[in-house]
Amino acid sequence: MVLLVHHPVSPFSRKIRMILAEKKMLFVLREELPWEPSDELLKLNPAGTLPVFVYDGKVVAGNYAITEFLEEACPDNPLFPKEIQARAETRRLCEWFDDKFYSEVFRNIVSEKIYKRFISNNSPNSKILKLGLSNLSFHLEYIDWLAERRKYLAGDDFSIADIAAASQLSIIDYLGDIPWDGYKNAKIWYSKIKSRPSFKDILNDTIKGILPAKHYANLDF
Amino acid sequence: MVLLVHHPVSPFSRKIRMILAEKKMLFVLREELPWEPSDELLKLNPAGTLPVFVYDGKVVAGNYAITEFLEEACPDNPLFPKEIQARAETRRLCEWFDDKFYSEVFRNIVSEKIYKRFISNNSPNSKILKLGLSNLSFHLEYIDWLAERRKYLAGDDFSIADIAAASQLSIIDYLGDIPWDGYKNAKIWYSKIKSRPSFKDILNDTIKGILPAKHYANLDF
Repeated sequence: MVLLVHHPVSPFSRKIRMILAEKKMLFVLREELPWEPSDELLKLNPAGTLPVFVYDGKVVAGNYAITEFLEEACPDNPLFPKEIQARAETRRLCEWFDDKFYSEVFRNIVSEKIYKRFISNNSPNSKILKLGLSNLSFHLEYIDWLAERRKYLAGDDFSIADIAAASQLSIIDYLGDIPWDGYKNAKIWYSKIKSRPSFKDILNDTIKGILPAKHYANLDF
Repeated sequence: MVLLVHHPVSPFSRKIRMILAEKKMLFVLREELPWEPSDELLKLNPAGTLPVFVYDGKVVAGNYAITEFLEEACPDNPLFPKEIQARAETRRLCEWFDDKFYSEVFRNIVSEKIYKRFISNNSPNSKILKLGLSNLSFHLEYIDWLAERRKYLAGDDFSIADIAAASQLSIIDYLGDIPWDGYKNAKIWYSKIKSRPSFKDILNDTIKGILPAKHYANLDF
């Protein structure tokens, strides 16, 4: 059995779900809370983080290890370019989203608006939220700049960089916090990602107690 | 020319310096301040982060991209195991150090004690520092646990996981903040890393205005 331990609000879980779907692998999902790692999760991944991938009783834990593992184990439908310098550019953008976007935007918005709600039922800290939204503008500008020059974020082909970006943006978009209309090229790029079959499952995600923005699953947004 | 844009207190710069030395590549170092990215650095890496690797006029930016690039471009003296599941375990540990150790330990100790000194000349926030040191105990226990069971952190062979760990630990050790005596196996492991020729250059590093702990460069500590 192929199992992915995940959570719908964990961006790196969404990333791996998209990779698995792009590679047309069948898998079973099991949900764990990212803000309260269970003993079972800690046994699979001592870091207590999501996602965790399990196949044939073997465990691959964490965003970095699973991403590279799936590309090595299932080279069909590749998500990294072949040429070495293009691979480096793709990984630079993955790090941009996995690290920079995550800490400057995602954490400030989603931890405040969603995680906090589940953990303490407290309302978001407006200062942190404002910082996240202001950082989001800078990142949307960068995505817009890339999408104006390239067909996909890392070049002519769809790649893991697009997945890294979309897996985080989609959660913020669920909350209705992305001002797409100010970023024409970014919007065109995101509509291409939204229409991929591998994104369908993510557009069907729901977050307990929070309704998605009206346009969330709409391909024409 | 092969150039590495780095800083002695940037752990990911140390990581790439060790990789380059393990792969016996000659390179030139150029220093940039990680807390104040110059226009020149931003041109090379729009994320403004260190390190950046430049060869034949081509740029590879960021920890993730450079690490994987160097393994692909220079497969001699490999730093990743061959077997796919062992590669996944190695990358899991890299993520442990690059992400978890960095945010729980490194940032709390080194940003407070070193970065702050350069940026504002303010003294460290004792609460943050205490948190970093308390988290350090947990991580040393984990390293000790691994080192008791394995010759190196990810298995029988020296790997990128050892480099990821040592590049951060060495900066904290410079400050004299690692209580090695409580962690016998971790200490034996670190003495093996210290005695590698690739670590020599790092043991010669100095940080402006801060003297290294007496044992910092001592192989018998």
